[in-house]
Amino acid sequence: MGESSYSKIKVAVIGAGNVATHLARRLSSATDVLQIYSHRLENAVALANEIGVKNCTDDLCKVTPDADIYIISVKDDKIAEVVDLLSRINDSAVWVHTSGSTNRDIFAGKMPHNGVLYPLQTFSKSIAVDVSEVPFFIEASDNSTLELVRRVALMLSEKVYDAGSEVRKQLHLAAVFACNFSNNLWRISDEILHKSNLSIDVLKPLLKVSVEKLQHLSPEEAQTGPAARGDVHIIEKHLEMLSGENREIYRILSDSILNHYHKNERN
Amino acid sequence: MGESSYSKIKVAVIGAGNVATHLARRLSSATDVLQIYSHRLENAVALANEIGVKNCTDDLCKVTPDADIYIISVKDDKIAEVVDLLSRINDSAVWVHTSGSTNRDIFAGKMPHNGVLYPLQTFSKSIAVDVSEVPFFIEASDNSTLELVRRVALMLSEKVYDAGSEVRKQLHLAAVFACNFSNNLWRISDEILHKSNLSIDVLKPLLKVSVEKLQHLSPEEAQTGPAARGDVHIIEKHLEMLSGENREIYRILSDSILNHYHKNERN
Repeated sequence: MGESSYSKIKVAVIGAGNVATHLARRLSSATDVLQIYSHRLENAVALANEIGVKNCTDDLCKVTPDADIYIISVKDDKIAEVVDLLSRINDSAVWVHTSGSTNRDIFAGKMPHNGVLYPLQTFSKSIAVDVSEVPFFIEASDNSTLELVRRVALMLSEKVYDAGSEVRKQLHLAAVFACNFSNNLWRISDEILHKSNLSIDVLKPLLKVSVEKLQHLSPEEAQTGPAARGDVHIIEKHLEMLSGENREIYRILSDSILNHYHKNERN
Repeated sequence: MGESSYSKIKVAVIGAGNVATHLARRLSSATDVLQIYSHRLENAVALANEIGVKNCTDDLCKVTPDADIYIISVKDDKIAEVVDLLSRINDSAVWVHTSGSTNRDIFAGKMPHNGVLYPLQTFSKSIAVDVSEVPFFIEASDNSTLELVRRVALMLSEKVYDAGSEVRKQLHLAAVFACNFSNNLWRISDEILHKSNLSIDVLKPLLKVSVEKLQHLSPEEAQTGPAARGDVHIIEKHLEMLSGENREIYRILSDSILNHYHKNERN
């Protein structure tokens, strides 16, 4: 072994879900991943095998005390429990979580050197993502911790931003609007098309262009459709075609567009 | 000139907006575009010059009587007026409009051979679109008209579907949900990010993956986020961060997801 391998950062990955999997895959060459923990042993084993890590466990009491950095990537509502149970095992190490919606102060009184390493991306284990393109938002308890978090973040991605918990919360909220809610609209759209024996497939070219337009135009400039044109006649016709919740969604989103682009005409 | 040029379909393009521009560009080599009309002469001139058409006008009384097919691609609420004013000039020709939300019966009693040629895409003059990938939905008054409309549609795109006015209305409604409303969510997201001196740029990798996921998963399968996980705690925290219309949009879209994925838990 060359000298460089001795200086590799030692990482423990607490979690084997979608985020943990993508981070561990990408860190497995640049760092020394000591261990994978998951509350489901088969998930820990599968990830460990894939990236050539020998040590894996489903027992938090057996988490290694030897890592330089612990990456906690479990469900948001399990972070507090994990932090609590691991609070004594390594006070000199750096502890981070990867959650967009969890304050860094979840570590307070438990791990003195702590931070956040939040990748702004939606991950599925089975879908390839170019992690190097994913923006990572980091913060930490102190400067030397921040430097280690930044070093790890830069191994993962070219796009690393400093962001405190408040900014991270706004980011997560913005991502829910931009991605989760859009996907829900695509589901409604797919439902409507199924009634005509079509599917969202016929809309994919349109969707693709809608997203590509954002390379050249702000969403404000890119807006098209009946409400952007102020075409109240079509809006009324569409509302007649809908009922229940989808009708309310159509109404409030059309109103949002009308209020933005035709406010003066409406007053 | 070879014999083939004599058999080219003769086209008149009524309109010089976004849709008319993309269709005229693509038809200019395969057909013989006789004339461009626009109520704004400078638009007609610009498009005609770009594609090498000599005849253009801003006067509906000067629309050529010599075309095989007239493509009416004006604003939805101007179609009736155009149909009315041009109703006598060529009864043997085929007349189509390109609107998703306008019935074919707008031609009734005016043009005997009529149809619809609806491209399901959002167009901007300045943004390149691969028209050959755009789905076109066609219908017509009679079989021979449908054949000419289909011939023209197949010059434009590989994806040509038969669809009556009812299906086309559902398509347009689905497209409003999938694209116009998504874009509005991206605008809201951009607004939220500006408060933290960020912009929708940081979300673009996430957006790109969200759309690419639809190649492998239905939108129903692809849904992620707090509401899909049933994470009511985060939903409440997000609602506290919002006010007014955006708060209502967050609430109704989260409810829509919760109702779809967690209906039993909610009853």
